[in-house]
Order: sequence, then structure tokens, then C-alpha cells
Amino acid sequence: MVEESRAKDRVKEIFDDIKATKEIDFVPNFWKTLATHPPLLDETWSRLKAVMAPGQLDPLTKEMIAVAVSATNGCRYCINSHTAAVKKLGLSDAALGELMAVVSLFNSTNALADGYQIEPDVLP
Amino acid sequence: MVEESRAKDRVKEIFDDIKATKEIDFVPNFWKTLATHPPLLDETWSRLKAVMAPGQLDPLTKEMIAVAVSATNGCRYCINSHTAAVKKLGLSDAALGELMAVVSLFNSTNALADGYQIEPDVLP
Amino acid sequence: MVEESRAKDRVKEIFDDIKATKEIDFVPNFWKTLATHPPLLDETWSRLKAVMAPGQLDPLTKEMIAVAVSATNGCRYCINSHTAAVKKLGLSDAALGELMAVVSLFNSTNALADGYQIEPDVLP
Amino acid sequence: MVEESRAKDRVKEIFDDIKATKEIDFVPNFWKTLATHPPLLDETWSRLKAVMAPGQLDPLTKEMIAVAVSATNGCRYCINSHTAAVKKLGLSDAALGELMAVVSLFNSTNALADGYQIEPDVLP
Amino acid sequence: MVEESRAKDRVKEIFDDIKATKEIDFVPNFWKTLATHPPLLDETWSRLKAVMAPGQLDPLTKEMIAVAVSATNGCRYCINSHTAAVKKLGLSDAALGELMAVVSLFNSTNALADGYQIEPDVLP
Amino acid sequence: MVEESRAKDRVKEIFDDIKATKEIDFVPNFWKTLATHPPLLDETWSRLKAVMAPGQLDPLTKEMIAVAVSATNGCRYCINSHTAAVKKLGLSDAALGELMAVVSLFNSTNALADGYQIEPDVLP
Repeated sequence: MVEESRAKDRVKEIFDDIKATKEIDFVPNFWKTLATHPPLLDETWSRLKAVMAPGQLDPLTKEMIAVAVSATNGCRYCINSHTAAVKKLGLSDAALGELMAVVSLFNSTNALADGYQIEPDVLP
Repeated sequence: MVEESRAKDRVKEIFDDIKATKEIDFVPNFWKTLATHPPLLDETWSRLKAVMAPGQLDPLTKEMIAVAVSATNGCRYCINSHTAAVKKLGLSDAALGELMAVVSLFNSTNALADGYQIEPDVLP
Repeated sequence: MVEESRAKDRVKEIFDDIKATKEIDFVPNFWKTLATHPPLLDETWSRLKAVMAPGQLDPLTKEMIAVAVSATNGCRYCINSHTAAVKKLGLSDAALGELMAVVSLFNSTNALADGYQIEPDVLP
Repeated sequence: MVEESRAKDRVKEIFDDIKATKEIDFVPNFWKTLATHPPLLDETWSRLKAVMAPGQLDPLTKEMIAVAVSATNGCRYCINSHTAAVKKLGLSDAALGELMAVVSLFNSTNALADGYQIEPDVLP
Repeated sequence: MVEESRAKDRVKEIFDDIKATKEIDFVPNFWKTLATHPPLLDETWSRLKAVMAPGQLDPLTKEMIAVAVSATNGCRYCINSHTAAVKKLGLSDAALGELMAVVSLFNSTNALADGYQIEPDVLP
Repeated sequence: MVEESRAKDRVKEIFDDIKATKEIDFVPNFWKTLATHPPLLDETWSRLKAVMAPGQLDPLTKEMIAVAVSATNGCRYCINSHTAAVKKLGLSDAALGELMAVVSLFNSTNALADGYQIEPDVLP
């Protein structure tokens, strides 16, 4: 990992932008690790910043989708950080419980639809 | 699959409830297939009906999470039916595009966080 | 794919062994495709034959596990062929329904356990 | 997590049922976590209890399928708890080895069948 | 999908760049579909063009990794297009067979390492 | 796990072969664990040794594919050991960064192609 004290040039700029954009006072391990290959840091951060900006969907909805994708993939780091993010944005325990119930439900029905070889009702 | 014309008793009741609840005039293949094992039909429909009812999260948000989970798992039937559902609920092409951009982004970062063996910033 | 009429030497031997072992009168597409790289055909068939032989677990249990793994991965070809196999071994619609209910359940709880970052109760 | 000492009403009832049904003297972390959203606890426990009851398939077969699904998904908590369950039900190291060999085999062949774009031999 | 004849402005520019860069005379379905949400088309194409350019790793190695990831995820469209790409770059049937054997092997050992709850030998 | 000091007969032979082949002075946890079911140890080691031998593809390419598959599956043990292996074979931080960028990219595009239900451009 590239620690903040060792960051310079474009890496330092991105680290500063991460802290300012996310309103946090440390650089998360994810970004310090990507900094070992600066083009990957640059590409991933630029993309995340653009995709997560408010648009047709609001930031909380986007972070909930991040939790849903990460729980489906079983990605420990990502579940941890996006769960922290939705809580910071005000999601209650009950709403998080509903989110998990939805994620749980569709991981079930996905396995059923595939397992029973069910054909789409309507072609796209 | 159990066709509507052959459904009776509890299966018929559930088929009727599916059509009424979803405001559609046919029983989707998914439910006709689960009807080959009525306890599975009953359990899955009761659960879906409860989980997808409006609560802390609204129905469109829940359907978008269904699309996100299904795209992550690559479940063809489910992607097909939940994409139809979000469109029916009014999601525009641009909003669907943002949803896909978010799903795309976090399938990337999940692989990066796992691939680089990154430890959580904060323990749960 | 290598059609049966074009198979020779080791590939022909394996094709004959597949038909004899599985008591079928054609070579499934899977094996005809692996035959494009004979070492892969040889390795995969030898391994499958050894692993699927009756041992501590009986053949039907092993085929049910094959269905469970394939439904979880969403592998269309494999679901198709292993579902045919369990039916040939006598699994009823009701028992297949129970199998699917179990697969469905644990795809749910896997997502919940990961999604809620739950620590094991007892270390291995 | 909701500790046992803080559980009341429906949550307490379910905690007691979990301990009685599983013949254990503590509530596993999974259930204490779901208790943060009682409807999710209720739904998940009722479903698990119904699906895992002896039926066409016996409890050991069902737990082995749970291990197979969890190993395929890489769900650490679930692998841990279902491995403990199959051992408690008497599965030997050799039988667990066979189960793992089957899970290992079909995770291979799933990737091969998908990777080579193999079409089903027989339509469902 | 946005057909080539309807593409204009930035979408048309990107379509032209795709055809020139890949040396093909049609726009693949993937890109015509992303064009329904131009920012997603733009972001994904720019990123793919940068990541797939020759660097420390050569284009064939990168395309083989694309096949490996896609086979592991079971993504039908992607397996189809990246298999076509490695063949166009000269990969023989035997080398493709080795690639598939490697993908097959590690999908096995991943399930075993997770299934047996094996701890890393050396911490990162 | 079967510790080296307790290994005998075929298990001891394989342990010695693992150390000689990999040029390491300890037996990794993976192999010590598979030794609890010797047929699984034997089958997995023989297969890995054959598949990873230099052939059409060189050892570094094969290990990079192992990293790509393991990162896609999120297998912690495997990512750890194959990352160590590519570094031992001389992969630089920049080349590892490119590998991760490719893995990241195609986990994105897989989700997009599935999520948008895109049909292959050319049938296999």
C-alpha cells in the first residue's frame, strides 16, 4: 500500500480528492492499494466519482445497490465499506433489514430460475 | 410446468393471487414451474409478496435491487422479468443506464478488493 | 466438436467408455467438445469416472450435489444434463422440488451471512 | 447483534425454538444478527425449519447440499456452520472428502461447459 | 439497441473508433446496447481501450484473461466475443484447450480451499 | 490437516513431490488439508502438476490466469498463494496492476452484457 505520507504528484492529488469528496480524514485501504499502480487508481477513482454522482438515481440508492452487488459476490471489504456508507447516509436498521431481505430473496429465486431451466416469458 | 387450466386448490389460489397482485393476465413461467412442487410455490410466493410489499424501501427501489442481484449472478430469466418490472414502474432508459453503470462499477471494485486482498478499514 | 465418426485412438476409446459407463447410445456434446484438446478430455473423463463411482456417497447423492453446484453457478448445460441424470436415477418431482428448495434456501442465507459480515461461531 | 439476554417477545420465542430444534445451548451469530430486523429473522427461520425438516430427502443429504452450495459461493460463515452440522450428523472425513471431490469436480466442469459454449444435448 | 444508421455525435464517433480500433466492419451488439445510455458507452469504451492497449502484458494475454474471467462468471456474450478474439489473435485449439484446463483447475481448487476453510500460508 | 511429520506412504511421497516441484521447503496448508482424504490429494496434485507444466502456455501466463479466476471467485486462500507465485516468477507491481485492471474490466463488462441481455454477435 502507498501510505499518504509517501504519496506524491497525481497520487497525492487523487488522495486529496478522495478525502474531500467523501468528507473523511483518511484514505481507505482500497485506494492506498490501487496506488501501487497509479493508472488503475486514476481510472477507478475517476469512474467511481462520475458514476456515484447524483443523477437519475440518488446517492443512497446507488450505495444500496453497491451493498446488494457486494453481498451477492461475497466481497468482504466492499460489504464493509458500503454498509458503513449507507449508515452514514442515514439508512436505519429496519431499512437495511429490508435491503438484505430483498438481496436474500433474489439470490434464492435466481438459483431456482436457473436450476429449473425456466425460459423468459417475453423476449427482450 | 403446471398450466393454468390444470391448476387446482392451493395452486389455483396462488395463481389467481399472482395475477391480481402483479396486475397481469397470465401466470409467468417461473410460477408455473414451481407449481410442480406446491410447497415450494407456496413458500416462494408468500415470501416474495411479503418482501416486495412497500415498507422502508419503495417497490421501484426493490425491483432495481432485484435487477442488480440478477445481473451480478447472470440469471437470464430473472434479469428479463425484473427489467420488464422496472420499466413498467416507469424507470427511464437513462435511469436504467445509471443502474447498470453502478452494477458494472461494483462488480469491478469487488474483484479488485478481493484480488488485492484488502483488509477492511473499520471492523464491523 | 469432434463427431464420433471422426474419433480415433485414445479419443475413440474414451468415447466408447463414456457410452458404456453411462449406458447411453450417443456421446454428449460436452465430451465431443473436450475432444478438441485430447489431454483435457482424458483428464476430465478419468476424474469424473473416479469421483462419481459409488463410495461413501451413493451415485444419486453425488448427482444431486452436481445439480446443486450447477444451479448455484447458473451453468445451463450442466443443469440440463445433471437434471436428466437425477431423473434417470429415479428422483421424483417432489424430491427434485425439495432439492431446489434447499438450494434456494442456502443461496439466500449465504448472501445474508456475507451481507451482514457475520463471524463464524466456532473457529475451524 | 441482539444478544440472548436482550431478546424478547417473538425474537425470544424464535431464539428458544432455534436452540430446541438444533439441540444446542447457544444462539448462533447468524440468528442474533437477523434479529436486528425481526421480520427477516422470522421469515428466514420459519423457512429454514420447514425446508430442512425430513421429507423426501433426509437431513444429512440436505446439510451436504448446504455445504456444496456454500463452498461454491465461498461463504465463510455458512461453510463453517454447515461443516459442523454434517460432522455432528456423523459424516466421516472420507465422506466429507468425497463430497468435496464432487463439489470440486462440478465447479470445474461448469466452467468448461460455459467456457466452451456447449449447447444442451436435450431441450428441457 | 442504437443501430449504426441512427448514431450521431459522440455515439457515432465512438462507433467509428470501435470499428477502426478492432479492425472490424460492424459495431458489436454490446456497444450498440450501451449506446442507449451514452455516458455508459463513453466510459466503458474509453476504459476498455486504455486497459487493453499493449503495456506490461501483451494483447493476447489480456484477451485470454478476458476468456478466463468470462468463463468463471458464465457470461455467454463475453465468452463468445473473447473466444472469437483470441482465435483472431492466433490462439490454436491446443492452446485454447490449455487455457480451459487452467480455468477448470482453479475453479476446482477455489471451491476446495473455500470449502475446507483453509487459512493462507503467508499473510499479505 | 495432516502435518508433514505424520505423513506416510503415498501422502508422504506427494508431500515430497510438492516441495521438490515448487522448490519450497514446507507443505502449504492446502495440500496438508487435502491429505485428510488421500484420493482427493492424489487426484488434485496429479492434475495440477500436469496442467501447470509448461506447454502451449508458459507457467507465468498460467499463474496469472489462476489469479484472475481466484479474484473473480473471491477465493482468499487462492488469491494469496497465486499472487505469491506470480511475484516469485518475476511479475512486477505494474504488470500485476495491469492484470488487476483487466480482471476488473471484464467483471464489469460481464455484468453489463448479462444485465442488458445482449445476444452474441456470431453463433459459435
